[in-house]
Amino acid sequence: MITKNSLDSLFRPKSIAVIGASSTPTKIGGVPIAHLKRYGYKGPIYPINPQNDTIQDLRAYKSVKDIGKEIDLAIVAVPAAIAINALREAAEAKVKSVVVFTSGFAEIGEAGAKAQQEIAELSRTSGMRILGPNCLGVMSGESGVYATFSPVAGTGIAKLGNIGLVSQSGAFGGFAYSLARDRGLGLSHWVTTGNESDVELADCLDWLVDDDATKVILAYMEGCRDGAKLLRALDKARAAKKPVVIVKVGRTELGAAAAASHTAALAGADAIYDAVFKQYGVWRAGTIEEAFDVAYAVSVGGVARGNSIGMLTVSGGAGVMMADAAASLELDAKPMPEAAQKQILARIAFASAVNPVDVTGQVGQDPEVMPLAYRLMLEDAGYDSLVVFQSAAGLSPLRGDELVQQAVEMRAKYPDRIFAMVSLFTPERHKALDAGQVLTFADPARAVRAIAALASYTTLGDPAGKVAALPRVDLPRGTLSEAGALAALKAAGIPVMPHRVAAGAGEAAVAADAFGFPVVAKIVSPDILHKTEIGGVLLNLQTKEQVAKAYDELTARAKAAKPNAKIEGVLIAPMIKGGVECILGVQRDPVFGPVVMFGLGGVLVEALRDVSFRLAPFDKAEAHRMIDNIKARAVLDGWRGAPAADVDALADALVALSRYAAAAGEKLESIDINPFVVMAKGKGAMALDAVLVVKA
Amino acid sequence: MITKNSLDSLFRPKSIAVIGASSTPTKIGGVPIAHLKRYGYKGPIYPINPQNDTIQDLRAYKSVKDIGKEIDLAIVAVPAAIAINALREAAEAKVKSVVVFTSGFAEIGEAGAKAQQEIAELSRTSGMRILGPNCLGVMSGESGVYATFSPVAGTGIAKLGNIGLVSQSGAFGGFAYSLARDRGLGLSHWVTTGNESDVELADCLDWLVDDDATKVILAYMEGCRDGAKLLRALDKARAAKKPVVIVKVGRTELGAAAAASHTAALAGADAIYDAVFKQYGVWRAGTIEEAFDVAYAVSVGGVARGNSIGMLTVSGGAGVMMADAAASLELDAKPMPEAAQKQILARIAFASAVNPVDVTGQVGQDPEVMPLAYRLMLEDAGYDSLVVFQSAAGLSPLRGDELVQQAVEMRAKYPDRIFAMVSLFTPERHKALDAGQVLTFADPARAVRAIAALASYTTLGDPAGKVAALPRVDLPRGTLSEAGALAALKAAGIPVMPHRVAAGAGEAAVAADAFGFPVVAKIVSPDILHKTEIGGVLLNLQTKEQVAKAYDELTARAKAAKPNAKIEGVLIAPMIKGGVECILGVQRDPVFGPVVMFGLGGVLVEALRDVSFRLAPFDKAEAHRMIDNIKARAVLDGWRGAPAADVDALADALVALSRYAAAAGEKLESIDINPFVVMAKGKGAMALDAVLVVKA
Repeated sequence: MITKNSLDSLFRPKSIAVIGASSTPTKIGGVPIAHLKRYGYKGPIYPINPQNDTIQDLRAYKSVKDIGKEIDLAIVAVPAAIAINALREAAEAKVKSVVVFTSGFAEIGEAGAKAQQEIAELSRTSGMRILGPNCLGVMSGESGVYATFSPVAGTGIAKLGNIGLVSQSGAFGGFAYSLARDRGLGLSHWVTTGNESDVELADCLDWLVDDDATKVILAYMEGCRDGAKLLRALDKARAAKKPVVIVKVGRTELGAAAAASHTAALAGADAIYDAVFKQYGVWRAGTIEEAFDVAYAVSVGGVARGNSIGMLTVSGGAGVMMADAAASLELDAKPMPEAAQKQILARIAFASAVNPVDVTGQVGQDPEVMPLAYRLMLEDAGYDSLVVFQSAAGLSPLRGDELVQQAVEMRAKYPDRIFAMVSLFTPERHKALDAGQVLTFADPARAVRAIAALASYTTLGDPAGKVAALPRVDLPRGTLSEAGALAALKAAGIPVMPHRVAAGAGEAAVAADAFGFPVVAKIVSPDILHKTEIGGVLLNLQTKEQVAKAYDELTARAKAAKPNAKIEGVLIAPMIKGGVECILGVQRDPVFGPVVMFGLGGVLVEALRDVSFRLAPFDKAEAHRMIDNIKARAVLDGWRGAPAADVDALADALVALSRYAAAAGEKLESIDINPFVVMAKGKGAMALDAVLVVKA
Repeated sequence: MITKNSLDSLFRPKSIAVIGASSTPTKIGGVPIAHLKRYGYKGPIYPINPQNDTIQDLRAYKSVKDIGKEIDLAIVAVPAAIAINALREAAEAKVKSVVVFTSGFAEIGEAGAKAQQEIAELSRTSGMRILGPNCLGVMSGESGVYATFSPVAGTGIAKLGNIGLVSQSGAFGGFAYSLARDRGLGLSHWVTTGNESDVELADCLDWLVDDDATKVILAYMEGCRDGAKLLRALDKARAAKKPVVIVKVGRTELGAAAAASHTAALAGADAIYDAVFKQYGVWRAGTIEEAFDVAYAVSVGGVARGNSIGMLTVSGGAGVMMADAAASLELDAKPMPEAAQKQILARIAFASAVNPVDVTGQVGQDPEVMPLAYRLMLEDAGYDSLVVFQSAAGLSPLRGDELVQQAVEMRAKYPDRIFAMVSLFTPERHKALDAGQVLTFADPARAVRAIAALASYTTLGDPAGKVAALPRVDLPRGTLSEAGALAALKAAGIPVMPHRVAAGAGEAAVAADAFGFPVVAKIVSPDILHKTEIGGVLLNLQTKEQVAKAYDELTARAKAAKPNAKIEGVLIAPMIKGGVECILGVQRDPVFGPVVMFGLGGVLVEALRDVSFRLAPFDKAEAHRMIDNIKARAVLDGWRGAPAADVDALADALVALSRYAAAAGEKLESIDINPFVVMAKGKGAMALDAVLVVKA
């Protein structure tokens, strides 16, 4: 198979042909030529139009094959009916990449999807990269590339900068471009991927990770077909310590339904995307605005070195507001050291000095208070991030310039910290703060949220949460009985309860006696997975006689309910008391493969959807994060006088389960360990029941 | 007791004296005079300064008593040491209201608090209204009143408009003022209440409800001492259909700790405030930005007539984003009628026509699509609110004006609907849309959130969720036994399980036999509230003999554990199977009085804090809303094949409990009904156990 061209030819083309070029600068085939000329594209532009010799004062060609020079990028702006021919000609002319504006493909149904397959095939056989069809193209300010017919560039271009923006949706991408421009954010590259016949969002992500001009990547995503490719790109970004912030739509059922109705992409469950983003260090923004806040914060301030936040305010209420935000975003709002608190109080007797530090309105009378507080919080307390609420002082003709200067000086002294000011500022002061790498926000909660994102990137570059060598797994065919499932899990390193499968009433009684009473007896059959439904479980058996009787009863019930069921025997196990009941599971996501689930047991957890997911396999640190992700986490710490649970044993089991699931391959359909009981700290954990389903 | 003056003299003073007036326009006693002159205050200004005859070109007086004319408002800008004398003189001069800028009172500790009590006392005895001390004063653009030393007015004043802004914090109030000015929002009045020696936030709220110029009230709140006063003001706002949006800080434990450290106000638990806001139709904004979004939306667009939302988009992704927001905010995103869907699809074959309606980029080619979609969504589907994502088209030189015109025309045709556009607009277009009562946002999620707030105000003006006639309650002294508590609750109309208190083993056996087996036996004593701790409960008794034996055993255990306990007997009740276990409770909030709590049973609910509160008493509709507020609500609808629970019976019980709690008065300390079991629909509900604590 042929190697596809690099995306360099798309983002940094040395020459551009426009197939379907128009003399009218507002027409789809005219817009890009007008933009390229207006915004100073340096390379040659080749309009292709069989009817004209000149287009917008440039020499035009009948066909892309007539140019006779190397062409990096061709823009295709012709109707769907002739687009495939145009693409074939481009491939024949060895064009390295094309942008296809043309719509009328997969988005309009089956006929369009078929035509799109031809396009994809052409890319595979020729190596020519194809962006689109049905996309708005690419803009790379650095080289003056405006290969788009989006009207947004017509009303002005965004500042050149270090934010790379990728959007699957064109309309959304255009909107985001305008927002960035209006907020004064600098972009390195802007690309919309449309129907993704060849170039996917993940390809663009991958390229932007390598791009030196790009410091942070902002992606808008509706779904993804090639999960493995996305994971590779995210892994690369993590290794390169390049923060990624993603807006992924379809969080609710209504949203997912809306998404399904307009995209042909096979979208995995939203909860799995959420897990992927957590696992790969991506900040998932809930809104466009938040995504831009985070991109801006990385762009100007960089990444936080840790999770602690110092909050400084001239107004108690704003301090409370920041504290609320910090607590709900799980930032570490540790208190100031005692000595530092004393220094604050010595200067302003009625200040609050813990964290938030409230220097009160007195700050207006004493210009030295702010620098003192900055120093104490950055040097003595050593906060990783500092957020300062200044009320409206940033607009003050008297104090504003001083505030800006003090902040910029302090940030220069502590270049490894995040320094954010919440106030309103004049445009000049904004500029000075930007240049001084001091972040500015007009809302305290938004400032703290952006800092939480910067803190989430702290671990970028750490070795990935994966495990290299996976166990050898010989999956049986078909579904296992409980005993079979427990045996498989035990072999995989997951602790299971002590148990024995008895082949007769006598053997059952002996086994029970060996365990000690009371015991539980359960029918064992691969054909009876829902044992309770047929009365296949008897609890709390107290004597050998009861156990023997139970054996007979269970086998009789099984035969009555399912005459043809294969009965392996009756499982005898001691009744386990205490511990926290959990559910561990594995399911296959169509996009990302095997996914491990964790939650506490019980009906309520299900009703509240308080579970967490991770792609398999993962390491123990990731398992702990996964456990920490559930809202009811406190129950494991010893709730209502119960002892703290053996979370470490739980994490080990999750890792083992993830390794097993990853190694088992596509045949493994699902695993359901319910309950998995976690005993008190140091006492371990164990599976009490399990179902393991293998594809036939 | 003397009647206090109306706050008219504070917000619309016909004359203003400035005590501690300064010739320097940047000093605390000079700023208000400079502002009043600069911004055209029409009434007389009387500077008070014993050293000067003229202050800022105005005749000055030695004392407020020397003026000899009626004075509506006096500003006090003198040091704390002489402030009380200044206030006494003002009271003697029959000044109707004063604004006290001076700090150094309750906020600095005990000595200050004592001085502040003198101020409060002066207001009580003279009827003079006192705003502050330690406040930034009041600004009422309408009458040119700038009775503040906040620097914000120095850099420009906000547009005159219909948003009334009340803040307990001065610094925060100043910041909010700047934000409003920068966003171009119009204010009617702005007031900061500082230490609230007399005038509280609730008083200002109350006054703003009566003020015709104010259409919506935005309040910033840290806490409140007089709960009853706040409730009266909120009730009045609700009756007057005047929307209130409140930013209340201290949502998290960290936030509450920060709040406690800087305010002397006795703040009730945050969850109770939350309940109050829900119960009284207040929108609680999570951030300042959100508060302004809502105030702006009411100010320009009014209140929604209902909860349904139509979403229209030119980009599928933005549609999904809006759908996600609508679903998480519980708006009714009902689908378009079939016929209307067909009309959309007839015009654009590849549109999504359900809701969100995605008319795709095709809209650029066909200017009639938008008006068609508007009509179908407002007329045929009848959505109460319509939100339209237009990408960046609002900036387009070609299409922007048309978009604005179409929207304004459509909103004029359907004046009872909310019409919101999400795009970027030029300032002129913004203005035209404002004038046409069309809302604009730059973020789809923020637009939908604002609409959710407007929809939450739909029920304003409805009869309050209260019940008039309360039952007569004769509270016993001291704490009751379980049987006593159940009897009291039963008398209050709360269903309790069938039970009998037996005075001997024989009587117990007979009672059990009458109920039918199995039964439960519990020791009954007001001195043993935690029965299980002493082994005071025996479950699942199957025979008369077991019951008789249980009687002896329970009384023996009780005597052994608590020799002096008063034993009332042994309670016999049938074992209740099935149903959903809930917890119903009553507690006293120090600010708001008796509060009813509801939640599902179980450890997890507690860990997840999934409970809801309401002030007692309330009606059945409110009880249903209270039940709907818990996240695990779905469990009551029949989870995992269980039958739907009798939510109506649950609501009745909550109403009865709230009526009892409200009537019982201050002596009632707490009630804990746990479990309260709700059976299948039509089968009722009942308390299985209860603790009722009465103050000695």
